[in-house]
Amino acid sequence: MQTIKFKNKPYLLTGYSIVGPLEGKGPLKDYFDYILKDDTLNEKSFEKSERKLLEKIVVGAIDKANLNTNDIDFFVGGDLLNQIVSSSFTARELSIPFIGLYSACATMAESLAIASILVSFNLADNVVAGTCTHFSSAERQYRFPLELGNQRPPTAQWTITGGGASVISNKPSKIRINSVTFGKVIDYGITDVNNMGAAMAPAASSTILAHLKNSNKRPSDYDLIATGDLGKLGSEILIDLLEREKIILGKNYSDCGCIIFDKTERVFMGGSGAGCSASVLNSYIIHKINKGEFKRVLLVSTGALMSTTSSQQGDTIPGIAHAIELEYVEDKIKKSILLQRKIKKLKRKRKSK
Amino acid sequence: MQTIKFKNKPYLLTGYSIVGPLEGKGPLKDYFDYILKDDTLNEKSFEKSERKLLEKIVVGAIDKANLNTNDIDFFVGGDLLNQIVSSSFTARELSIPFIGLYSACATMAESLAIASILVSFNLADNVVAGTCTHFSSAERQYRFPLELGNQRPPTAQWTITGGGASVISNKPSKIRINSVTFGKVIDYGITDVNNMGAAMAPAASSTILAHLKNSNKRPSDYDLIATGDLGKLGSEILIDLLEREKIILGKNYSDCGCIIFDKTERVFMGGSGAGCSASVLNSYIIHKINKGEFKRVLLVSTGALMSTTSSQQGDTIPGIAHAIELEYVEDKIKKSILLQRKIKKLKRKRKSK
Repeated sequence: MQTIKFKNKPYLLTGYSIVGPLEGKGPLKDYFDYILKDDTLNEKSFEKSERKLLEKIVVGAIDKANLNTNDIDFFVGGDLLNQIVSSSFTARELSIPFIGLYSACATMAESLAIASILVSFNLADNVVAGTCTHFSSAERQYRFPLELGNQRPPTAQWTITGGGASVISNKPSKIRINSVTFGKVIDYGITDVNNMGAAMAPAASSTILAHLKNSNKRPSDYDLIATGDLGKLGSEILIDLLEREKIILGKNYSDCGCIIFDKTERVFMGGSGAGCSASVLNSYIIHKINKGEFKRVLLVSTGALMSTTSSQQGDTIPGIAHAIELEYVEDKIKKSILLQRKIKKLKRKRKSK
Repeated sequence: MQTIKFKNKPYLLTGYSIVGPLEGKGPLKDYFDYILKDDTLNEKSFEKSERKLLEKIVVGAIDKANLNTNDIDFFVGGDLLNQIVSSSFTARELSIPFIGLYSACATMAESLAIASILVSFNLADNVVAGTCTHFSSAERQYRFPLELGNQRPPTAQWTITGGGASVISNKPSKIRINSVTFGKVIDYGITDVNNMGAAMAPAASSTILAHLKNSNKRPSDYDLIATGDLGKLGSEILIDLLEREKIILGKNYSDCGCIIFDKTERVFMGGSGAGCSASVLNSYIIHKINKGEFKRVLLVSTGALMSTTSSQQGDTIPGIAHAIELEYVEDKIKKSILLQRKIKKLKRKRKSK
């Protein structure tokens, strides 16, 4: 079954996000935990900056949960750099068992899904899941070195500098994870690497359809359905694709790549990158759920699964999307869960006596 | 907890392996399902050959289990090419929900671990897990294009052309999976990309120690402890490292990279690559367990987590190893499990009446 519904629901204990200076000027600036003044982080290369950024994000999430690395059973994550080096080197510093993933910009949802499974089935008490991207390392690897000063076409998106991490835990918090849907790889034949939104929209459509069907829900059951980084054009394509299936996305639909920036001067179609849905989830979305303003959210991180080599060899761009359903837990429910657990514990103690 | 012990044990239903012409001349030649005569697989680039190879392997494993792709709930896998394109493009052809992983040459064990969790907790009936490598695409990406004719230093290993896939299922077979141990990222400061064995040995040691301790077992409890691709030098380092911890690996220790080749003319320290432990597990090891000649096996796939960029920027090579414990299931036990399940089903039916 593509959708996994949790009986024993894991909780999102804390989310932590850091973004770069440009993202820190956008409309979500008040929600991020930290905004970099200098996106080099005093490192000699952008790849090393990205790595340091991810370390700071993951450690930040663990700290915010009042835990230390010994309390964390697994680090689940990946990133866009070849061989996910940012994540692997971060795992080296943390010395936590590491489950490395790759799902391009869908990594945040995939990491959360694996983390949620581990916690739901009592294989872990606390798991940290996270990812990030850096504009300059992504440009160098996927497109051109910045020093070349290449022009960008109007369908291009802007890989954000930033990211986020969440601590998934069996300890009740105000946000619980109801279910996850792993996506299929979908390819509509897009070859333009400057039009990622169009390449990923069909995968988002496929995963949203599967999730709604398997969960027996309609879009109106959610206060927010947020795709990862389709951008302006990709979002429009998604709306069209779902309309054909008689699924109407309303005002509750948003794309993390569209809401992280307001001015389009440099960013054209909006933000992208694994860090995009990671930073928006772990700031704005979590904040709104914690306040009870969003009761139920579907995060659909979207990824484009090409490499520079596959593109150079004429291949089309396959897309993937993974979805995760988050729900607000009222204080009284949270308290009753804690009480029930205490009673269970006491009963077990008495039995063992 | 780093080690996950399954109460509801998943089964390895079938394993399927394909290797290239050189590997097909080695000592394990009689165990592989298929030996390529032409390692280009009639494709125009080695990257496309690798992709076609993985497709054939995954489809082969599903076919061998007498299943079709509709019976498979998830495809779990990754590979060494940037952005794991071989796996993503394979997932596109299969149209099965895809969980993409990256753990370098430790991918086979990591994929099996995730697949086992999904099956053990009834999140899936059948999951296919697999990976492969291609000598020529790996050389081009990680080292030099073959056309340059570069010389190889004596500590070098040979990325094998080949791979394997397993179908993990809740349907009893002769091989069950007892437990998995996810590794930590360990770095002893090796910088020589032509000495991967030395870079990965400390991670193998760390994971084996954790697995033995958490499972309360000694090396002699296994008929085979097989590391992924440490090669001759790396294996010797592992034996030394474990000796210091008073763990003595005996004749039951082997390295997939050492046993896949016999002559060392071209391969120096032995085989390597994600396909190495994948092909040896899904041929020789599975064959021996199925015959009851190996009662209990610990497979420890080993990965080096650098990228060409991280190496060029002077970084050391972090290593990781994931372990998976396989056990032979006697025919009478298998029959009794099937009988118990039937009884349970009947009881449930009566109750519902």
